[in-house]
Amino acid sequence: MKVLVLNCGSSSIKYRLFELPAGNVLTSGEVERIGEAESLLRYSLPGNSSPVENRHPIADHREGLAGIMAALLESGTVQELTELAAIGHRVVHGGECFRQPIRVDDEVIARIRDMIPLAPLHNPANLMGIEVAIQVAPQATQVAVFDTAYHQSLPPHAWHYALPYSLYTEHRVRRYGFHGTSHHYVAKQAATFLGKPLDQLNLISLHLGNGASATAIRNGQSIDTSMGMTPLEGLVMGTRCGDIDPAIHSYLNRVREMSIEEVDRMLNRDSGLKGLCGHNDMREVHELADAGDESALLALDVYGYRLKKYIGAYFAALGRVDAIVFTGGIGENDSGIRTLACSGLEALGIHIDDAPPRPAANNILCLHREDSPVRVLVIPTNEELEIAVQTMDCISNRVA
Amino acid sequence: MKVLVLNCGSSSIKYRLFELPAGNVLTSGEVERIGEAESLLRYSLPGNSSPVENRHPIADHREGLAGIMAALLESGTVQELTELAAIGHRVVHGGECFRQPIRVDDEVIARIRDMIPLAPLHNPANLMGIEVAIQVAPQATQVAVFDTAYHQSLPPHAWHYALPYSLYTEHRVRRYGFHGTSHHYVAKQAATFLGKPLDQLNLISLHLGNGASATAIRNGQSIDTSMGMTPLEGLVMGTRCGDIDPAIHSYLNRVREMSIEEVDRMLNRDSGLKGLCGHNDMREVHELADAGDESALLALDVYGYRLKKYIGAYFAALGRVDAIVFTGGIGENDSGIRTLACSGLEALGIHIDDAPPRPAANNILCLHREDSPVRVLVIPTNEELEIAVQTMDCISNRVA
Repeated sequence: MKVLVLNCGSSSIKYRLFELPAGNVLTSGEVERIGEAESLLRYSLPGNSSPVENRHPIADHREGLAGIMAALLESGTVQELTELAAIGHRVVHGGECFRQPIRVDDEVIARIRDMIPLAPLHNPANLMGIEVAIQVAPQATQVAVFDTAYHQSLPPHAWHYALPYSLYTEHRVRRYGFHGTSHHYVAKQAATFLGKPLDQLNLISLHLGNGASATAIRNGQSIDTSMGMTPLEGLVMGTRCGDIDPAIHSYLNRVREMSIEEVDRMLNRDSGLKGLCGHNDMREVHELADAGDESALLALDVYGYRLKKYIGAYFAALGRVDAIVFTGGIGENDSGIRTLACSGLEALGIHIDDAPPRPAANNILCLHREDSPVRVLVIPTNEELEIAVQTMDCISNRVA
Repeated sequence: MKVLVLNCGSSSIKYRLFELPAGNVLTSGEVERIGEAESLLRYSLPGNSSPVENRHPIADHREGLAGIMAALLESGTVQELTELAAIGHRVVHGGECFRQPIRVDDEVIARIRDMIPLAPLHNPANLMGIEVAIQVAPQATQVAVFDTAYHQSLPPHAWHYALPYSLYTEHRVRRYGFHGTSHHYVAKQAATFLGKPLDQLNLISLHLGNGASATAIRNGQSIDTSMGMTPLEGLVMGTRCGDIDPAIHSYLNRVREMSIEEVDRMLNRDSGLKGLCGHNDMREVHELADAGDESALLALDVYGYRLKKYIGAYFAALGRVDAIVFTGGIGENDSGIRTLACSGLEALGIHIDDAPPRPAANNILCLHREDSPVRVLVIPTNEELEIAVQTMDCISNRVA
């Protein structure tokens, strides 16, 4: 079956068309700069090295998605749009409503809209994608797949903040966690690789990309995660601060006369690696650090140390850990960060091999010593494939 | 030598008079409700079960301290004020200036004043105490002992937040940590008890009182601590939230129209145990939980789980741990919380004995199984004695 995966931002739509259950990508592409004078539709076909690029004004998301459908037909990957069995939509915030993927209906749309205050930057765009997809491809089943869903298994002691209880009941203030699709995907890959059923597997998964989060997985289920009510909490990220003293806001208000919005913008956009050393791209940070730049060296140290603390915290939460999994752009490629995070943890049974990583099946790398009680793996993530598979399972009623 | 220890709040002065090096308390007491219609001077003498109470107006801290001096003479514990070799002042925030206790001079006073923006509630009162002590007891050497000093050994990767670097250079935003006197005291006690030099000892110390903090100690030195720029960060406390998503401020501003000051007040005064279940006194929380109150049970779970995560995080930071030390009112008395924090950590070498705690020398309790690689100790803290000893060491030039 053919499943199209859509990821809609405020001025962009990314797509990938999968043939399932094989999982191969038939075509993928994106629309950028929607609403600007010169928009761009770019797509590639397997086997063709250079992508097709069409530049012309695209007024809104409806036009953008119509362009994508035309490109699908033109590419020959579908002959008619009725071949699209389903469209899987990435939705950032599902709040407490959604523990798994769901077929979209009016009720689902209303609930995603209801979650906008919790994710004001993401849910409106995700919702727009769903609404135009219903118009442009009415024959396809629309499925919403939530970044938060995998973490709905957190126990209350992990998702409650020590705040007035009414903030939860009246304003839904709690830990939700994000990157759930990625954490879930690599957990399943780890289970296959280790030859152990997912529901018996304890993992610490580290999704390290531009955003970054750590998840504690017990018996295949998320029991804690470092992102919180929003994706700002937890690890150091490209431009986000992660954990800080929550009194810093009022201090900056007093000494620097910053408003709550200014502080929030700074914590989200000007902090993290960028705040510490001026660069939010980890490769640039490494280049600077290799050249001896003090602030870049500090940024790496802070980044790695925060990771190490989360590994320890989640080790304690889990009590027993089968494997630590690195994924995401940094997790998959940055051996320096992985070493910073895992060094000196022999007392936890984490022994990294001095030799280079050992390639294994499914593009997985093994970093642990053969006799290490805790395995340390690099598993490439594939959120789009996971959304496609969950979408297929949903329309096949394999998910309750 | 006789050393008086003073702890000045905005409307109170607590004092304790020590005979050193023996360390015995000659008398102790406090002045309360300074500036109110009916102030109170209360003090007790060793051997007398009921304290002396004098109620009369005390206009300001100078009058309060003069009353304390009169009480010292009246009690017969000193014949003349010249017997006071030194007065040790607890000062909450020493910023980066003070790594150890210091004799007070004009320069020191200016620096403590300079730290007021970092501790607007505490440093002004601490400073007032120093200034009136110079007036009332000019013959005594005044020594300032800082809550932050012990944590000045933190490495940069532990004290830097992932915030714009200029916030540190221009506004001194960083982790400072507090309760340093208590963590240092119990670390020294642990070294004596375990028969191992402090500079070879790795500890995780948990000071759990109305405020609460965890400290990772490597070779006797603090290398990380859970409180941050202020005492708001970290563990769950009586009324303070500890760690939260730093985006919650702007969310509450949007959905509840709370100002930055209102959010700050709520995080400091209406959160923590009180926020979760309405009671900030741990004993009351236990009573409710024992009666089956759901929110009290949740509050205990959140409190214990946060502790467990810090134990794990600091275990990872240290790599090797000789002992976990519980101290403070809750740490010393609450076996339920200690069990919540330490259960399920056998993979870290932490084995709690099922039998009741074993009393040992110096009022220390042992909670670990005899064969546990990590010892788990309850060590009563004594911040006043530690201030007195550090004051003595300072005037004896035993501290550089």
